[in-house]
Amino acid sequence: MTFDLVVRGTVVLPDGPAEDSWVAVSDGKIAAIGTRNAPAAREIFDAGDDLIIPGVVDGQTHACSYGGLPGIRSTTRSAIAGGVTTIVDMPYDNPAPLNTLERLVDKIAAINEHAHADVALYGTIMPGQTTDDIEPLIEGGVVAFKISTFESSPTRFPRIASDQVLATFLALRDTSVPLGVHNEDQEIVRAYIAAAKASNRNGIEAHSGSRPPAAELAATAQFLELGAASGAHAHIVHLTTPRGFQLVDNYLADGFRATGELCVHYLWFDPDRDGAELGARMKVNPPIRPGQIDALWDEILSGRVAFVSSDHSSWPVDNKFTPSIFDAGAGVPGLETLLPAFYTAADNRGLDAAAITVEQLCERPAKFFGLWPKKGAIRLGADADLAVLSRRPQVWDSSRAHDELCWSPFDGRAFCVTVTRTYLGGQLAWDGVAVVNNPGAGRFVRRGSSHWFE
Amino acid sequence: MTFDLVVRGTVVLPDGPAEDSWVAVSDGKIAAIGTRNAPAAREIFDAGDDLIIPGVVDGQTHACSYGGLPGIRSTTRSAIAGGVTTIVDMPYDNPAPLNTLERLVDKIAAINEHAHADVALYGTIMPGQTTDDIEPLIEGGVVAFKISTFESSPTRFPRIASDQVLATFLALRDTSVPLGVHNEDQEIVRAYIAAAKASNRNGIEAHSGSRPPAAELAATAQFLELGAASGAHAHIVHLTTPRGFQLVDNYLADGFRATGELCVHYLWFDPDRDGAELGARMKVNPPIRPGQIDALWDEILSGRVAFVSSDHSSWPVDNKFTPSIFDAGAGVPGLETLLPAFYTAADNRGLDAAAITVEQLCERPAKFFGLWPKKGAIRLGADADLAVLSRRPQVWDSSRAHDELCWSPFDGRAFCVTVTRTYLGGQLAWDGVAVVNNPGAGRFVRRGSSHWFE
Amino acid sequence: MTFDLVVRGTVVLPDGPAEDSWVAVSDGKIAAIGTRNAPAAREIFDAGDDLIIPGVVDGQTHACSYGGLPGIRSTTRSAIAGGVTTIVDMPYDNPAPLNTLERLVDKIAAINEHAHADVALYGTIMPGQTTDDIEPLIEGGVVAFKISTFESSPTRFPRIASDQVLATFLALRDTSVPLGVHNEDQEIVRAYIAAAKASNRNGIEAHSGSRPPAAELAATAQFLELGAASGAHAHIVHLTTPRGFQLVDNYLADGFRATGELCVHYLWFDPDRDGAELGARMKVNPPIRPGQIDALWDEILSGRVAFVSSDHSSWPVDNKFTPSIFDAGAGVPGLETLLPAFYTAADNRGLDAAAITVEQLCERPAKFFGLWPKKGAIRLGADADLAVLSRRPQVWDSSRAHDELCWSPFDGRAFCVTVTRTYLGGQLAWDGVAVVNNPGAGRFVRRGSSHWFE
Amino acid sequence: MTFDLVVRGTVVLPDGPAEDSWVAVSDGKIAAIGTRNAPAAREIFDAGDDLIIPGVVDGQTHACSYGGLPGIRSTTRSAIAGGVTTIVDMPYDNPAPLNTLERLVDKIAAINEHAHADVALYGTIMPGQTTDDIEPLIEGGVVAFKISTFESSPTRFPRIASDQVLATFLALRDTSVPLGVHNEDQEIVRAYIAAAKASNRNGIEAHSGSRPPAAELAATAQFLELGAASGAHAHIVHLTTPRGFQLVDNYLADGFRATGELCVHYLWFDPDRDGAELGARMKVNPPIRPGQIDALWDEILSGRVAFVSSDHSSWPVDNKFTPSIFDAGAGVPGLETLLPAFYTAADNRGLDAAAITVEQLCERPAKFFGLWPKKGAIRLGADADLAVLSRRPQVWDSSRAHDELCWSPFDGRAFCVTVTRTYLGGQLAWDGVAVVNNPGAGRFVRRGSSHWFE
Repeated sequence: MTFDLVVRGTVVLPDGPAEDSWVAVSDGKIAAIGTRNAPAAREIFDAGDDLIIPGVVDGQTHACSYGGLPGIRSTTRSAIAGGVTTIVDMPYDNPAPLNTLERLVDKIAAINEHAHADVALYGTIMPGQTTDDIEPLIEGGVVAFKISTFESSPTRFPRIASDQVLATFLALRDTSVPLGVHNEDQEIVRAYIAAAKASNRNGIEAHSGSRPPAAELAATAQFLELGAASGAHAHIVHLTTPRGFQLVDNYLADGFRATGELCVHYLWFDPDRDGAELGARMKVNPPIRPGQIDALWDEILSGRVAFVSSDHSSWPVDNKFTPSIFDAGAGVPGLETLLPAFYTAADNRGLDAAAITVEQLCERPAKFFGLWPKKGAIRLGADADLAVLSRRPQVWDSSRAHDELCWSPFDGRAFCVTVTRTYLGGQLAWDGVAVVNNPGAGRFVRRGSSHWFE
Repeated sequence: MTFDLVVRGTVVLPDGPAEDSWVAVSDGKIAAIGTRNAPAAREIFDAGDDLIIPGVVDGQTHACSYGGLPGIRSTTRSAIAGGVTTIVDMPYDNPAPLNTLERLVDKIAAINEHAHADVALYGTIMPGQTTDDIEPLIEGGVVAFKISTFESSPTRFPRIASDQVLATFLALRDTSVPLGVHNEDQEIVRAYIAAAKASNRNGIEAHSGSRPPAAELAATAQFLELGAASGAHAHIVHLTTPRGFQLVDNYLADGFRATGELCVHYLWFDPDRDGAELGARMKVNPPIRPGQIDALWDEILSGRVAFVSSDHSSWPVDNKFTPSIFDAGAGVPGLETLLPAFYTAADNRGLDAAAITVEQLCERPAKFFGLWPKKGAIRLGADADLAVLSRRPQVWDSSRAHDELCWSPFDGRAFCVTVTRTYLGGQLAWDGVAVVNNPGAGRFVRRGSSHWFE
Repeated sequence: MTFDLVVRGTVVLPDGPAEDSWVAVSDGKIAAIGTRNAPAAREIFDAGDDLIIPGVVDGQTHACSYGGLPGIRSTTRSAIAGGVTTIVDMPYDNPAPLNTLERLVDKIAAINEHAHADVALYGTIMPGQTTDDIEPLIEGGVVAFKISTFESSPTRFPRIASDQVLATFLALRDTSVPLGVHNEDQEIVRAYIAAAKASNRNGIEAHSGSRPPAAELAATAQFLELGAASGAHAHIVHLTTPRGFQLVDNYLADGFRATGELCVHYLWFDPDRDGAELGARMKVNPPIRPGQIDALWDEILSGRVAFVSSDHSSWPVDNKFTPSIFDAGAGVPGLETLLPAFYTAADNRGLDAAAITVEQLCERPAKFFGLWPKKGAIRLGADADLAVLSRRPQVWDSSRAHDELCWSPFDGRAFCVTVTRTYLGGQLAWDGVAVVNNPGAGRFVRRGSSHWFE
Repeated sequence: MTFDLVVRGTVVLPDGPAEDSWVAVSDGKIAAIGTRNAPAAREIFDAGDDLIIPGVVDGQTHACSYGGLPGIRSTTRSAIAGGVTTIVDMPYDNPAPLNTLERLVDKIAAINEHAHADVALYGTIMPGQTTDDIEPLIEGGVVAFKISTFESSPTRFPRIASDQVLATFLALRDTSVPLGVHNEDQEIVRAYIAAAKASNRNGIEAHSGSRPPAAELAATAQFLELGAASGAHAHIVHLTTPRGFQLVDNYLADGFRATGELCVHYLWFDPDRDGAELGARMKVNPPIRPGQIDALWDEILSGRVAFVSSDHSSWPVDNKFTPSIFDAGAGVPGLETLLPAFYTAADNRGLDAAAITVEQLCERPAKFFGLWPKKGAIRLGADADLAVLSRRPQVWDSSRAHDELCWSPFDGRAFCVTVTRTYLGGQLAWDGVAVVNNPGAGRFVRRGSSHWFE
């Protein structure tokens, strides 16, 4: 027989890398995996000793916060250029969030029109909304729901009161679908920001203190307990300190379904070291805390982190140029840097970077969102989503990024690897120079049957 | 030498009961303890084989919620008649709570005028109040602070926002003074009550569900985490299910200062069994839950309960006669029944009732509030606060109670013991028929140096 | 390219079965794994929907106890017919055990002459022997050492005194090589057998009691502590009750290297149920205990069992026909039944039999003895040792076994699967009817670098 | 009324010291305890602010190893002079151990004739002895049994084989009576001593290594497991390293009855520091290990030590003057130094010496051996056994000891306290200068009903 495609190189399989090996593709799926002599194929790419890894599943992106549904186009173009073949997009779209089946249908249509990468979707609920829309959204294929305990925008990103959080959990209790939370206590954050403003502390160095760990942890603890009380899966979409992961672990130990996620910027930046240089360019919520990087890596190594994501936000940099840090938009672009940045940070710590990258960026998010075994691993029958990772060093230059934003906190940072090819469903999508697939090549992917807690 | 007083009987000492023994008193303190032949004394009372126990320390009372500071008189009169020689009174006085040194001075004056029993005091803070009053109140002798996450009254019993809870914890972090909480999530409770009303569920059977365990536990989890974040001692003044004690235990295991309290009605009543008979007479907040009694006793036996109190409320029964359970006042009288009810319940379960009663009603609350070793044990040098507990059965009849309220959920319940004498500081205060000491015989007692977490 | 061999079927990969898939072999190694259309090969075998699993690694066999080194021939012939492609043979050869490099050389020569399957080897030490031979034996390739605390034979299977056990552990402390033990306290066993004989209890029902759990556990505890004191890896080659695995687990929790193994007969037979039928045919040491089967499966599922083996013994059945159970030889043939018996027992319990079989009989023993990744998994680059497992039921008939013993406790037992093919290094060795490879086709395999405790 | 005796001072009660207090005695029992003004008594002793503590219960002594039963006289005289009012004597009497009711009767007779202090007794069994004598010995009042896994003397202190250990445990399983063990593996010790001798290492510095921790721990692990297998209470009479206490703790955690004891010399001496000075004068078995003192105190503070004893041995010092350490007798005199040495060591570490001394030397051994509440605490109804401990420093001079041995490893050591009076059953027994009670004043004390594991 003749395969559609064979990619040769050091193939990173679930139980480790295999040198001088190959992946063969038929009909968009991985059809064979072998070592040394490759079989015949209509197309053969020899990556030498570059790493061939599963396409990354970025579990937290905001494609449509700024530009609405068309934002999918530039976001997924950036994803593909960064080796990310699936994004899990948050529901806080502009001008209105994904909280009904109708909006899901619209967003799927936009994916079909715009997406360069596959897209899975979060849903949400709005204040006052009943839980009647939850089941249709699950049947429609959303992979998770998310709410916030802090109001970033009344129409797009509102605070959900605890009775409605509880109602949502109860509607999800008999499913495997997680409810995620943006975890900040609104009363504490507002009081602390007011106090900071009153004392004229307006720079990035005031940001972490203005949304203190106590605000994050109080919201986390309350949310986890509501999840426990209802029996549903409670997920904290970002935790910035080890205490947060300890809380999650206590719920697991007590027999409940609880998880916590990290974003790559918490593993890279420190306001004490980088604040003067980056200013609002490193403003995210909850804030990056001083002195946490080592401790957060320990959390990863201890297995208490569900997975690592980018929390990619599509804000133009103008959004950051404000006199006060409190007026600057929160969030940073991150899709195109996720893979090289995480790999580099792991490598710099002396870890087995290939293994931990595939675990945290591919396998774990795929399993978490019910996309495994289609996504997240190089295994027979999986989608032929592949990234070729060359051990060629680079210095990040966001002016060449594909997200139309062209700014990044990683600008000028050295990465030890470069994404030189990306395949989506066996089709070349990124050739190291340009995104070569068409908008609409990416598809909407539904939650499947894989369950995290089994 | 000649003692002022000798009381003979079965003396319940810290390490167990001593039959045919005696306690000798000089200058209001316990001066000697012996067995068999008693020494000379100006007054000798022979209790036969009745139990002589330390006067009870009721760690949660509301003497002044209804009648204001003069409420101390009837409340402490009822205390003395029930073997309770010290009450720890909550700050939610009518018309204004104890939140400043000035109000503390007023309440101490009222104690000096009215009290039949010793009185220790909780303080509180009001919305918008700074933490400046906390240190003066501690220096003034309060034993603890309390706030609520649910607003029962805007002026007397308000909800405190989480930023202010955090500020209060931070003001207490370097002290041994606990911050207690009335632990119910306001948003959930209000939403659930509205739903119950909307569906015309208005009886006592709707009460537990209208303030569901999730509301109680979410508030508990958030409060414990704020305590942990600040390093202060967080105390939950009532937990109605084992999950609450598990939460507290998780914080202890993580190295934080956390405790949880039980009230005796949670150990006696069950809405499924008693609701039809008692109706609003058993309405307390958080509610008594169905089917929890056995599990809560297990919590006591496992050592996870800080102590047991009455949560005595001074509401006239009229307050309960409302068409809807949601309009009925919450809280029940309980001072005079605390000791016989707890002893009886323990005895009915086959426990060593004398030992567990002295532990939970005397020693533990005394240690918790910094009153030990003056209070809580029959030991040399302690205040000669004693209760004589006869193994004479009785059926409770609140019409003979000394609290001026004359109603009780315990009416008609059989107790296996009767309080036949109470001594306060070596003075006879209750002779089994009447309260014989004068208003003002009781004194204000300050927090001392005993620490719970040492 | 053209492969040497392709085997098609339901391939049981490390992360689960892949239907309609294939394994391709070049130069005796697994060169490719694929699904659906198979590549060209000089030889193709289509197993339909039969399971293709890694060849079994039987971690405990006694090929040479009776017939000396030539016993390798019939033992490995039986192995191959049972889907076992590697045996780990015990050192207690007749007439003298493998305790020097010279004897290792002899045994390797015998393997090269006789073996139908690959063979890894245990070494041992004899009473009075220094530890000087240990390092040469490790360099010679033994995978583990074993001693006994009970003397079965003074020249072949002696008791090793505790000072020598300690010395052996100390010689192994800086290696990954385990020291295994036959764990029975000699004093207790001899006293209990004497007592049983004195009271004329001579049947199989007296066997378990004559070597009571206390004898097994006392020897286990002492051995584990000697391992802990020296820092070496202590391995208990058979534990018959959950308490043994609890002991092992305590050592792991205390930071020491400790493991415990199960044999398949402990998971199949119960003397209370089967004793009357089987008599001495089920005599093994330590004995099979009454009522342990369910509890031992729980140990497997909890992850506390290192792996499952056969403890195959090459005794002729005459050895069992004695008037007293105490004169009967201990041990049973088991190589050819190991795979179908374990699979069937797992299947009967409703477990995922394919997954648990590959884990317990292939992957875990391969990792334990340092044979992974060459052995134990269907993965690129591994030896092409494969067993084809058909879901065709059979009733075991030992008269057709290939071990020249022709008796078995499994006679008449129903198995739900049949081994229909075995490949050793890509060569057909068993075709479902006959062993078709030649003596000497099997090779000696050395301990490699895989480490259990990493 | 008039008491027989009143002793005034700082009375160390179970919950702490009471200054300016007193203990009153009637009929040999503690009849009253008070503070300040003491009652009338036929005899009053005012100890000023000296400590009044319960008489010490020394849980491990060897009164009769050397001089036979008459050794009770000098041993208990020394006890009384050291504030020890009860000794628990080991069974290894000269010429024959206490292993039958007849020998118990003889030893009780010797106590009645010779004892200056109360005496409780261990029993033992001899090799080959059935368990028939165990129940009569328990009925006769022994408080515990002891065996050894190492043979110090074939007739007096033999090794007991593991089958007999198991039989003894089984005979004790339904009782609260512990089986203690001298815990050293004979094979290891003999091999290591032979090796030391062969290499001419003969000094005290070779002693610990010649009986290595592995020997002690292997015997401990085996013994604990035999106890667990039978359900009886297993007690290790001396553990010299934290690992031993960890082992005991593992058994407790697994639900078995297990305990471990410390002797005061393990808390005082270190062969690296004191070996050159003391030589064989510090030889005990198991040996004092280098560098363990701090870790063993941590064990005490963590609650994992059952109690502390002296292991007093009655060897004349000639026994120590041998060319080789291996020929020197093991054991040291220690009764008269136990109390001041332990108190001083605790005080030097900044601990609450009075509290920890009363806990470890009085209360815990009394409870362990079933002597509480008669012994071990100053409480109503207890035997009036009291020691007066003055805070007067002293330098130990064994030439003035009362044990007829007149040597000690403590010679020249500074103690911060001095035993100035001892009362036995309310009778003055030691006045600070001389032992003033008569032989026979001490009585045999039986095991009572107090149970350690309740």
